[in-house]
Formats: sequence, structure tokens, C-alpha cells
Amino acid sequence: MIEAIGNQYVVARPVYSTNTFGEEFKKTQRHHKTFLDHLKRCCSCSSQKAKKIALSLFPIASWLPAYKIKEWLLSDIVSGISTGLVAVLQGLAFALLVNIPPSYGLYAAFFPVITYFFLGTSRHISVGPFPVLSMMVGVVVTRVASSDSTALGQSSSSLENDSMIEEKNIMVAASVTVLSGIIQLLLGVLQIGFVVIYLSESLISGFTTAAAIHVLVSQLKFMLQLTVPAHSDPFSIFKVLESVFTQIQKTNIADLVTSVIILVVVFVVKEINQRYRSKLPVPIPIELIMTVIATGVSYGCNFEERFGVAVVGNMSLGFQPPITPSVEVFQDTIGDSFGIAIVGFAVAFSVASVYSLKYDYPIDGNQELIALGVSNIFTGAFQGFAGSTALSRSGVQESTGGKTQVAGLLSAVIVLIVIVAIGFLLQPLQKSVLAALALGNLKGMLMQFAEIGRLWKKDKYDCLIWVMTFIFAIVLGLGLGLAASVAFQLLTIVFRTQFPKCSTLANVGRSNIYKDKKNYADVYEPEGVKIFRCPSPIYFANIGFFKQKLLDAVGFNPLRILRKRNKALKKIRKLQKQGLLQVTPKGFICTSDGLQDSEEELDNNQIEELDQPINTTDLPFEIDWNADLPLNISIPKISLHSLILDFSAVSFLDVSSMRGLRSILQEFIRIKVDVYIVGTDDEFIDKLARCEFFDEEVKDSIFFLTIHDAVLHILMKKDYSTSKFNSSQEKEMKFDFTINTNGGLRNRECQVPIETKF
Amino acid sequence: MIEAIGNQYVVARPVYSTNTFGEEFKKTQRHHKTFLDHLKRCCSCSSQKAKKIALSLFPIASWLPAYKIKEWLLSDIVSGISTGLVAVLQGLAFALLVNIPPSYGLYAAFFPVITYFFLGTSRHISVGPFPVLSMMVGVVVTRVASSDSTALGQSSSSLENDSMIEEKNIMVAASVTVLSGIIQLLLGVLQIGFVVIYLSESLISGFTTAAAIHVLVSQLKFMLQLTVPAHSDPFSIFKVLESVFTQIQKTNIADLVTSVIILVVVFVVKEINQRYRSKLPVPIPIELIMTVIATGVSYGCNFEERFGVAVVGNMSLGFQPPITPSVEVFQDTIGDSFGIAIVGFAVAFSVASVYSLKYDYPIDGNQELIALGVSNIFTGAFQGFAGSTALSRSGVQESTGGKTQVAGLLSAVIVLIVIVAIGFLLQPLQKSVLAALALGNLKGMLMQFAEIGRLWKKDKYDCLIWVMTFIFAIVLGLGLGLAASVAFQLLTIVFRTQFPKCSTLANVGRSNIYKDKKNYADVYEPEGVKIFRCPSPIYFANIGFFKQKLLDAVGFNPLRILRKRNKALKKIRKLQKQGLLQVTPKGFICTSDGLQDSEEELDNNQIEELDQPINTTDLPFEIDWNADLPLNISIPKISLHSLILDFSAVSFLDVSSMRGLRSILQEFIRIKVDVYIVGTDDEFIDKLARCEFFDEEVKDSIFFLTIHDAVLHILMKKDYSTSKFNSSQEKEMKFDFTINTNGGLRNRECQVPIETKF
Repeated sequence: MIEAIGNQYVVARPVYSTNTFGEEFKKTQRHHKTFLDHLKRCCSCSSQKAKKIALSLFPIASWLPAYKIKEWLLSDIVSGISTGLVAVLQGLAFALLVNIPPSYGLYAAFFPVITYFFLGTSRHISVGPFPVLSMMVGVVVTRVASSDSTALGQSSSSLENDSMIEEKNIMVAASVTVLSGIIQLLLGVLQIGFVVIYLSESLISGFTTAAAIHVLVSQLKFMLQLTVPAHSDPFSIFKVLESVFTQIQKTNIADLVTSVIILVVVFVVKEINQRYRSKLPVPIPIELIMTVIATGVSYGCNFEERFGVAVVGNMSLGFQPPITPSVEVFQDTIGDSFGIAIVGFAVAFSVASVYSLKYDYPIDGNQELIALGVSNIFTGAFQGFAGSTALSRSGVQESTGGKTQVAGLLSAVIVLIVIVAIGFLLQPLQKSVLAALALGNLKGMLMQFAEIGRLWKKDKYDCLIWVMTFIFAIVLGLGLGLAASVAFQLLTIVFRTQFPKCSTLANVGRSNIYKDKKNYADVYEPEGVKIFRCPSPIYFANIGFFKQKLLDAVGFNPLRILRKRNKALKKIRKLQKQGLLQVTPKGFICTSDGLQDSEEELDNNQIEELDQPINTTDLPFEIDWNADLPLNISIPKISLHSLILDFSAVSFLDVSSMRGLRSILQEFIRIKVDVYIVGTDDEFIDKLARCEFFDEEVKDSIFFLTIHDAVLHILMKKDYSTSKFNSSQEKEMKFDFTINTNGGLRNRECQVPIETKF
Repeated sequence: MIEAIGNQYVVARPVYSTNTFGEEFKKTQRHHKTFLDHLKRCCSCSSQKAKKIALSLFPIASWLPAYKIKEWLLSDIVSGISTGLVAVLQGLAFALLVNIPPSYGLYAAFFPVITYFFLGTSRHISVGPFPVLSMMVGVVVTRVASSDSTALGQSSSSLENDSMIEEKNIMVAASVTVLSGIIQLLLGVLQIGFVVIYLSESLISGFTTAAAIHVLVSQLKFMLQLTVPAHSDPFSIFKVLESVFTQIQKTNIADLVTSVIILVVVFVVKEINQRYRSKLPVPIPIELIMTVIATGVSYGCNFEERFGVAVVGNMSLGFQPPITPSVEVFQDTIGDSFGIAIVGFAVAFSVASVYSLKYDYPIDGNQELIALGVSNIFTGAFQGFAGSTALSRSGVQESTGGKTQVAGLLSAVIVLIVIVAIGFLLQPLQKSVLAALALGNLKGMLMQFAEIGRLWKKDKYDCLIWVMTFIFAIVLGLGLGLAASVAFQLLTIVFRTQFPKCSTLANVGRSNIYKDKKNYADVYEPEGVKIFRCPSPIYFANIGFFKQKLLDAVGFNPLRILRKRNKALKKIRKLQKQGLLQVTPKGFICTSDGLQDSEEELDNNQIEELDQPINTTDLPFEIDWNADLPLNISIPKISLHSLILDFSAVSFLDVSSMRGLRSILQEFIRIKVDVYIVGTDDEFIDKLARCEFFDEEVKDSIFFLTIHDAVLHILMKKDYSTSKFNSSQEKEMKFDFTINTNGGLRNRECQVPIETKF
């Protein structure tokens, strides 16, 4: 029994190698499920299962019947109205990011909510336009449209051209939206929503910061009211900046002033909202207020004609007819659409997770994907653009008391009212006001620059991920940048394990504790034993590094020692053949007229022989390689007799590393260094056995449970061999190994102790 | 002291937490080199260092002065001549893969050898054309030339067009070669030759097999003498096959018969060479023999005119003038050139490594890169194409006795003789013969299909890498396929660690051994203690998985328990406030007229409160959550009081996972489950401290050296609290907690044991 005796750790048990342990404690037979079993289970069908799947496809069927009208309806209505107003403004503003007329932003704020109401599992998120996503769609629109417009040539008149470009932009945006919706739907149906786990926090932070910079740059032209030609990735951001600054003198001052005022006011009031959060009943809806004021002023003072500012303009009442997305655009934009699909889902899912955790209800990633996918297809078909959720808008929906997606539905009703009835009121609103409002949402994202310092202190790799993601997303653009960042991020996982901090361990405190010997002053290292620890998996990219570190730790290359010993053996054999080596009970007497030390040419077979195990069966004695050998035969002496590899943190080996490890072990074993591997799982050994790792040289008896087991085993073996040696001393014949050479050292006798074979 | 006592593992020492261990055994202060130190050391300069660098840049300066003319020259000459003949044939054959006239293959076999003689560190490899690399260049040539030819239009006459296309092809091949040489040179100068470690054995095997298939398909048109239009990646291989099979009836029978005969003979003789390797003095030079015969027969029977076969044709004697590579082509082919540079280097380096290991001399990866880079620039400038080394040719050079690159130089002399003097003799040689000879080299590569089965048995991931690499390289083409495969391969490293096999451990054999409890029948699990092991690093992509597995193992969600307890606490407080709960020495008597169990609406702050630690300081008693609580308050009971996380195989945490882990620990600690982490390195804890992982709840005293230390600590603590409880029993006041409720259960008294606060 295990008992706590004072504060003492007292253990007395046999020394266990993995094999002896396995003999004493039988393993239970476990049936491991095969791939086939999983497949069967997955594909099995029952009416219950079918019902469950049907229910999970329409989450509304579970929550709507349980709706508590008395308690929830009022707060849902309040929340719906507030969210709806925010949605209208954001829709208008983010449409500018897509490079399409603002009124289309209203569609993007209306349609997705309807489908999400039926299909979504989150009760609190407000689906619809999201700046980063709008920006990503905008990038595609710019690229495809610009490539088309150059092909179009300058034949038609400028005005006609403009409206054609606009139409084309809308078409591209809608097609991209539909395609990303299809991708989301597919991912959801195939149940591979887990891909978002590859977007780490550092990556998302770096990416959204870069997106904020992109938004900022793209809104400059509206704030300054400049005509900036479309640029496509990569490096588009720099090209846009160049365009802006080369024509900065053409700035429309009225727009600049308006937008700066709006920006300042919005920032200040948002700061107040933030600071007096607990005291205010609801946050001040500053964006709404500013929009109303700005629209009024613009209309009253007739800004459009007086200062030539750009206004929202013609708001066609009602909806556009649905369109068929363009398959050509699909082909051009498959990569971007994939990025949009992933980013949209990642953002929506992470926001939804926060609320699901807070209010303790389950959400389903794959169902979310399906919901977003259908929403996007639906939205795209009605000429909207890709949506996800804006953190700020979801915050409004939740903080004003939204309980379910009924609030979302009501917010859609508000958007609907604007679309079909009062949209014309917004016609005099300046575009620069919308741009400023869009920028007002970026503060949080831009503040993320502070992450760099924090991450640098915590983890260099995470910091690197942030910085590289940011750079990629800025330079390559959002779509390609995301792909590059994910690839880079996965590479860091490889980096982290690629250069493990291998260490030599020694006993600390004379018990069963082994620590890095460099860290402690008073350590005990058993003589001739090296304990080497590798703290990471070993695979193709670090097996070479592992080997180098191991050789550094032991201080010699076993292969070279083996070759030297085999060469020496050849010489000794030659001496014996030539009769220069005589076996006497007292020793070998070697009388030669000159030992030629020419570097003989070895043919291929001979070179291969040097790598073979040392074979001394034909010699009537064994050679003690650590003793002084006769003249001209010098072999580096090694004091190492046992090597313990601590593999407790080696979570896997791949085939390349297995082969490499095996050859290293072989080299050590061939120069009579016993190798022990400790701390591995049972499965690890099973796998090695399956891969034919073991043979006559590398045996499966090298595994021990702990370092201490192995050390005790080694000490015991030593003890035993010493005592055996002592007890059998009467039988022992000690030979001397004497060589007479010519030259300066002629007649000198070297006494070499040679162990006899028993 | 550690001593082996029989076969016994006997240890008696204090129980150590990491902190107590650290107090007893002081760590030595170590100066860790900073990045700056490394930089300083790297950039320091001395005349010695300069000399060493200069020498390492020209390895010839070290080996040529040590050249042993007597012993080496003869075998170098023999080897040089044999290798030279092979090089001529391979040069001609591989030029077909590049889609340029065969004579240009001779340049590719001549120039690189010259520079490698001065710059290379390997003594045995024969640099020059390599089929996979030729194929890769050929793919680029096809793509760039075809895109140009469509732009060119069909205006000029067919013949003129042909020669123009040929010129263009040569230009593209030369430019790609120069660019990949520049890339290699840069990589070498920047000392980043280590990138080749990312090409694992499985990847190279899959890639070369795919390349062999590509070679096979591309040679079909020469063997059947068909005109196949150029197709560019991806899917080019299928398009080529389609072209071939749609016009199969146009096959030139003479070419088909010749090539089949050649193929059969070459295969048979190679098999003989292989089987009687040890008995034959030199392998039969079957390719040379076949070429001579085929040339003779073709000339003698005038195949060209009689059967309309395609022959090598015009071999312009001498060299072409050097050309300036096209910068336009550079821009188009940067990705492909990178692939060519990497593959070329990887192949040459791996072959060179084999020989350097065999003959025990050092090679330098970065110098090899420089040597290959310069060679390729030089070759490209003289209208050759990218080279590396062919395994078969290097095999000839080594096996015929080549000792140094002098043999290489002599092989170049043979090529030179063919170029300037006797090249015209090869004019009647059929192209189909060359194609058949190129195919003859592929057997080894194609045999690698057997790898799939072997890898599947050994390691599923490695098998997956092989198959995916093969598919990528076949479908996407060699350049893009290589990039995709490397990315996929890195992803597998992530996969391997992403779904760790977490397990619950238990004591086996009642000593200090803990194993997966599912594997052993007779295990001991201390009551209320769960030992959980995660056998892989934890990072952004698997922290969610880790958490899920942990919750599965303990059987409940701590956050939910916490919330339920906090809700219950609210109710108890309410009862107390309403005076329905009376504290008496015997217990709480609760008389209420009805306990409303309405799901009250909680506002935001209240919801957040539920996640806070349980605060009972204002109550005059402590609540034993595992006892039955009064009516209407039901809390899941948990028997767990301690959780031990075995992190001995967790080699790193990233920032995301650290945050996740911290919140998990917090949740457990808040429901009064003690958490212990065992088996970590000291550095691991230092890093957590640096990342502000610890606070008042999650303390740094949770670390113990081993599982057994933690278990003993837990048992001791239990013992202590029990004994303390017993000894202080006289002071203890046991309260009862009685509630009178209305309704059916009115007047029923629930007795709830409540621990008093001491």
C-alpha cells in the first residue's frame, strides 16, 4: 500500500526494466477501435439519429417553442431596435469598403439575419457586415474589376463606364459572397468546422490589426474625397497610399473637416461610454446621433452643391431582383472566397463562443458554418456582400438585453423599414461621414499593437507569429496574407520542436532525482554513465540535431571509434598471421622487423567491413580497447560504458528519425556501450517493434521504467561483473601483449593487459 | 549514495514539491548566452578566421596539394573515362526532358563539372544532369514557351516558328538555370543550407517516384514519335496522356520497336549487373553498347529516310556563345527556380553525404550550395540547363575507382571531346533510343511504390506524406507539388501532436509506478485523486482538445459546478436574509412559506458573479457541497479533491494554451479541487512565471517533482486534516440545516451536515 509516512518518500521495489515489469504486471487485453469501427458507428442509421440530425439542422425548432414571451419579448424588442439602427449605419459604412454604393450595405445587413434566425445556434450574435470581411471582399472586387476594366478599354464614355464598373463591382461582390457561402456550407456539412483552431489568438490579433490598417487606408479616399484608381494585391496598400499622397492637394476641405469632427466626437463619446460603463443605463448611441446631425446639416446647408462633397445619393427604395452569380468570377476568386469563408466563420464563432460560455448554452461549430453558409448564399443572391458578425454590434445586441435571435429578427425589421420606406432621408449624408464612422470602430483593433510587447515578453514565437501575420497581411493583402500566416504559424510548431534543449542529467540529492547537471553544483554522475535527455519529439527535421547533441554530450563519435578499432584489429590479425604475435601464458610477444604504417588503399568491401560489429571470435583473446595498445596502434580511449536516453518527453518518432536513431544506437552498441531508453510509453515500444526496430544488436530489453531503474541496473551489473571477476580469479589467465619493433623504439616492450575469454 | 542492493530499487527521501526541492538544492547561476552574444561571436573577425573562410570557399586548396599522384591518378583516369561516357549519353537523353535539342545536354554535362572541381567538397559525386531536375526545368520551359507562343500568334511560317520556339526554349532553360543557381548561391552565402532537412525521406521518395512518372509520360512522345502540344501545370500530365492516346494510331512503328528493344535489353543487362555485382570486374556498360549499335544501325539502314524516325540531327561542333539570361523569365519562374534550387541541392547533398560517411571525410552543406550555385550560373550562361548529380552516374564514378574530383574533371574532358570533335557521329542516333535510355534509369525510382506498403505498416503519417507528395507532384506538377508537399508534411507534425492520446493514470504495483489505468487490471487509484497525462506539447490547436479530454476524464465541468454552487449560495443567503434560516447550535432551521424556484433573470453583472470564486465569508458556516442540501437546491456531488496533471511530455506551451490552461486550473481551484502539475522542467515553470501565469488562486506551489511526490503530499494532507479534525472534535459544533417548506414536502426536515469554520 501507498502510505504517507511523515513527509517521506519511501519506496522499495524491484528494479524494473519494461520487460520485467510487463512480466510481473500483466496488461489487460483492450479492444482498440479500428478505423472501420469508427466508420461503422458514424454511418449507422436509426430513426432517433435521423431525428436528432434534423433537429440540429434547425435549432429554431428547439428554442422557439421554449420562448418565454412575458419575460423575454420586451427586452428582445428594445435590443432589436438598438441593434437595427447600428446595423443600418454599419451596413452603409462597410459598403464603402466593398467599393459598392452604400445602399447595398443595407441588403447585407438584412438578408443574413433572416436565415440565421432559423439556422443559427448562437442566441446573442448579430450577423451581418463585418469590416475586415467587407475589406476582404473589397480587395477581390478591386482586383477583378480592375483587370476587367483594362480589358474593357477606354472606348465608352466615362459616365457610362462608371455605372458599368459599379454594376460589375456589385456582381463580383455578390458572386464572391455566394461562393464563400457555398464553401462554408460544404465545410459545415462535411463537419470540418474544426479548421478554425488553426487560427491562433496571436494570428487573429495580428491579422485584424493589419485589416484595420487596410480599412484606414481604404477610407482615406472618402475622407479626403479623392479619386484613387483601383490597385490589386500584393503591395496594393502602398500603391493606394502613393496615389493619395500624390494628389493630396486636391483634398475636399469640407469632407476633411466633417470627417475629422465626426471622428473626434465619436472617439471622445466612446471613451466616455467605456469609462462610465457601469453608470450609464445604455451607452450613448453617438453614431446614430452624429448621423442624424450630419444628414440634417448636409441637407440644410446643401453641402453637395456648395462644397461638392460626395453624398450617399440615390437610395433606390425597395429591393433589387436576385441575380445569378458569375461562374467566371468563381474561378478567379476561389482562393479569396476560401479566406473569406474561414475568416467570417472564425470571427462569428469566437464571438458566439464568448456568449455561449457566459450564458451557458451549447453552440455547434458545424451548424454555425451551415447557418453562415446559407446566409451568405442568400445574401449574395440578393446582391448583398459577405457577412459574419461585428463585435461592436453583437455587443449592442447583448448589452441592451437581447435574449434570443428574435432580437436579431427585429433588428432586420428596422433595416427593412429603412430599405423600403425612409432610406431616401439618408440621401444627403456625406460619404466621408460614413468613412469616419467606419474608422470609429477600429480603435480596438488598432490598440492591438500593444500585443507585440506583451507577447515578446511571454513567448518569442507567438510574438513572431503576430508580427509576421501583420506583415504578410499588409504586404500580400488579406487573402494571400492569411494563407501565408497560417502556413508560417504551423511552421513555428515545427521550429519549437526542431532545436530541442537537450541536456545531460545527473543525480541530485543521491536519491531518484535526476536533473540537468549544469544547473546544480552538487551532483553525482555514476562513472562511465551518461544520461541524455531530449525534451521534444524526434522527427525528420531534428534527428540530425539530436544526433549532433548526443555526440557532443558523450564527447566522441562512436562510428569513428568503431572504424579505428576494426582497423587496429586488422593489424593485430596481420601480426598474428605473420607469426609476429605469439600467444604465451604470460602474454603475446610480438617481434617484427618493422610495422609498416602505410595508409593502405581499402576497396569497397573492406570499407564496409570497418562499419561492421567487431568480431574477435577468431582471436584467442579479447582486447581491452581502453588499455595502451602496442606501438603504432592508437585508439581513442573511452570511459563510457552505459548511455541512458531519457525519452519521457519524446512524444513521437517518425520513420526517418527511427532509422536515424537505430543507426546511432547500433554504433554505440558496436563499441560495447550499453544503451538504455527510459521513460517511454508502452505504445511507443509497441510501435518500434512494429517498425522492425529491434534485432540482435538493438534489443527490446534496453527499455527501463525510469532513469533510476536503469542506473541501478547498470551499477548492479558492474558490481556483479566485478565480483564474478574476483571469484573466478584463479581461472583467469592474464596475457601480456608484447611487441618488438624496429627503428627508434625497437626492443621496447609494451605491456598490454588483455582480458581473456571465459 | 546510490547503491545497488540486490535487484532492489530502494529510495527514502523527503517528498519534494518543486519549491521545497529548490530550497534544498540551490541552483548554480548560469550565464545564458543572449542573442547579442551569438551575434557578436558570429561577426567577430580575425586573420585566422578570414583565412579559414577563404580556404573553405576553395576546398581545392586543401585537397589538391595532398593529391597522391602515384596511388590515385590511375584509378581517377579509369573512373573519369567511364563516367565521361555515361555523362555524354545522359546529357543527350535528359536534354529531351528539357525540350531542347540533345546537343545542349552535352553543355549541361560539361560546364558544372569544371566549377565544381574548384568549389565542391565532395570527392565522389559526378555533377551534371539529373532526370528529375531536367524534368522540372522542362516543365517551366513548356509553360513559359507555350504562353509566349500563343501570344506570338500563328503569323509566321511553321518552320520558322519551330526554330524560334526552339531558341526560346533554350533561352528559358538557361535563364531558369541561372536563376536557380543564384538562389543556391544566396542560400549558401547566407548559410541556410539547412532548409533541406525539411525534405524527409518519405517526401523525397514520393516526389522522385512522381518525377519518374512524369519522365515516363514525357518520353512517350519520343518513343512513339508523336507531336504532343505543350501543356502547362496543373494537370498537364493528364493532358499529355490524352494527347498521346488520341493520336496513338499515328505511332511511328520503327521508333516504337527500337525503343522497346532497347528498353528490354537495358533492363535485362542491368538486372545481370545487379545480380552478379560481386563477380563482374566492372558493370557491363550496356547503355554505351546500345548507343553505338543503334547509331550504327540507324546510319547503315538510313532509318531517318526510310522510316521517318526522328534523329538527334545537327550536332553543331563546338560551343555556343554565352547569353544574357532574360529578366522577364526570371520574374515568371521565381517559384519554380526555387524548387529547382532546393531539389538540386537536396539530391546532390544526400548523395554526397552517403560517400562522405563511407569514406569518412567532411562535406560542408553551405559550401556545396555555393559550388552548385556557381556551377548552375556558369552552365546557364553557356546555354546548358540545371544540374545536380545523377545517382547512377555518381555510382559509376565511385565504383570504377574515382578518388577525387580529378576523375570528374577527366569525365568533363571526355564530354569536351564529344562536343568539339566526334559529336557528328551521333547525328543518326534516334531520339527514341535516347528516350528509352532515359527510361532505363527510372527502374529504381519506380520501384519505390513498394514503400507505400512498408510505410503503412510502420507509420500512418509517413505513409500519408508519401501518398500526398506523390499525388501533389503528379497533379500539380513538380514545382508547385513540391511546395504543397512540404507544407503538408509540416502540417503532419502538427497533426501528430494535435490529438494526443491523453490517459488517466493509476498506481501499478503499489510503489512509485503510474501507468494508464485502462491497461492494467490490478491498479490503485487514491480516492478522490485523478492523475491525468497529456503526452504531447499543448498549443493553440490542441488546447481545446486537451480541455475536453480532461473534463471527460474527471467526469464533470468545473465551471458548471461553480455556477450551480454560486446560485445555491445566493438562495441560501436569501433565505438567511429573509430570516428563514436560523442559526442554532443544533442547526439551521428554515421555515418558509414557499420557496419560489423561478428561474430568475440575471443581469450581466450577476452572471459574471457566478464565475467568481465562492465567497462564504459573510456566512457563519461553511457549506459541505457534497452533502445533501435542503430542498430545491441540488448540486452535483463531486468526489474529486485533487487533480494531478502529468506534464512530463509537454515540451512547450504557447500563449494561447497558457491562457486556456490557466482558466481550466482556475475553474478547478474555485470548486476546491487541488491541482498539481508534475514532471515539468525548471525552465517550463520559469516561463510560466514570466508570462504572469500565477496569481493568488493559481500558485507556483502546485508543481511537484513526480506523480508519486504529489500523491504522497495529497495523502499526507488528508491524513493531517483528518487527524486535526479528530483532535479538535471537542471544539466542533455540528449544525443542522433544517428547512420547512410549503406544499407536499412541508414540514419535512432535511438534515444537512455543515462543516463549521475554525
